[in-house]
Amino acid sequence: MVKNILFDIDDTLFPSTEFSSLARKNAVNAMISMGMQGDFETLNSKLKSIIEKKGSNYPRHFDDLCSEMGVADSARFVAAAISAYHDTKTSIAPFPTVPMTLLRLREGGFRLYAATQGSAIKQWDKLIRLRIALYFDGVFVSEELQENKGGGFYRKILETLNSKPGTCIMVGDREDADIAPAKAAGMRTVRLVAGRHASVPSNADFVIKDIAELPAILRVPPQNP
Amino acid sequence: MVKNILFDIDDTLFPSTEFSSLARKNAVNAMISMGMQGDFETLNSKLKSIIEKKGSNYPRHFDDLCSEMGVADSARFVAAAISAYHDTKTSIAPFPTVPMTLLRLREGGFRLYAATQGSAIKQWDKLIRLRIALYFDGVFVSEELQENKGGGFYRKILETLNSKPGTCIMVGDREDADIAPAKAAGMRTVRLVAGRHASVPSNADFVIKDIAELPAILRVPPQNP
Repeated sequence: MVKNILFDIDDTLFPSTEFSSLARKNAVNAMISMGMQGDFETLNSKLKSIIEKKGSNYPRHFDDLCSEMGVADSARFVAAAISAYHDTKTSIAPFPTVPMTLLRLREGGFRLYAATQGSAIKQWDKLIRLRIALYFDGVFVSEELQENKGGGFYRKILETLNSKPGTCIMVGDREDADIAPAKAAGMRTVRLVAGRHASVPSNADFVIKDIAELPAILRVPPQNP
Repeated sequence: MVKNILFDIDDTLFPSTEFSSLARKNAVNAMISMGMQGDFETLNSKLKSIIEKKGSNYPRHFDDLCSEMGVADSARFVAAAISAYHDTKTSIAPFPTVPMTLLRLREGGFRLYAATQGSAIKQWDKLIRLRIALYFDGVFVSEELQENKGGGFYRKILETLNSKPGTCIMVGDREDADIAPAKAAGMRTVRLVAGRHASVPSNADFVIKDIAELPAILRVPPQNP
């Protein structure tokens, strides 16, 4: 009997890829507004490849872009880019059916957890900015469990919850990080088929296109009319 | 003949002390909203003394507060506090007469610079969020010049600008960091008498209560009617 629902966050609870792309564009426009030389397309594509090469946690993407463009006095452009990037990232919003679905699941007696890559504070920050933090009893992150999202990651979650695999269901958009390893750890699985990984075939127990399908799968009684 | 106007930023161009205090209060309230135990007064006064003891650039104020309160699972509270603190700090606004005064000074042919403690990117970030960055030709910061705000700091600014002291006027709210050392370097000085340092006596060439008094002091012709 499922009691605990684990959620991936990025591209499962909110359109993370879309916001990252928008944040990058806004950062480039902010640099241009401050007088940075170069057209939008050149700057945006250079920045995109710097982020791809150095990874999203590298802290000096904008400094590197200034170097590549031969800009000497870069502080004003880096500051403009960081501030526009953060403003976009802090205005993230959940997929529209997420808040009401989480509330229904809580009312249905389930305990909700996030299971994600990254650091605990960054992931809580996302839940807070998405205005859904209060629905979650905890956040399991790869950094603290010292495991990337593989079978070991999900087994450590089961240990921490002191729960049998059959009491947990994992919900996520990625077959490799969310579904396959959770299934290997014995959990039930729900694959959200949407976004850039939508074409990857699934072995999940359930396949959904919208988080709003979860209450029916978990047999939560319908709301009062 | 004055050509260059140097401005302190904190408590000269915007009410920095007031915003810091509000940011701290909002951070405490955000922790309470996430379920942190403790009443507002206790948490706020503990946080205030941690910030005073460790300095404002120490990155773990909220972690320390959680430790002091005996909170084990602190990530959600730290994330809530950081996010509320940043949201407040990013909504800073200038003193009301600042933008129009800077514009008039630019139109009057002056070049404007900021001269502040801290890092160049953080100071540009403030000018950008205050929506006044485009009025400034440069930012001089203690970190880059490797001098705290003393006589050496202002002499290095004169070297960088390749200007004689009499062509520069320094505007700030602090007698110790803004007025006395700028005067010692031979600059003209304007003391803004407001805020928490208002009672300190001044040896500045001019004393003002509002930045809007600057154009008259610098003999900028009145605007078209």
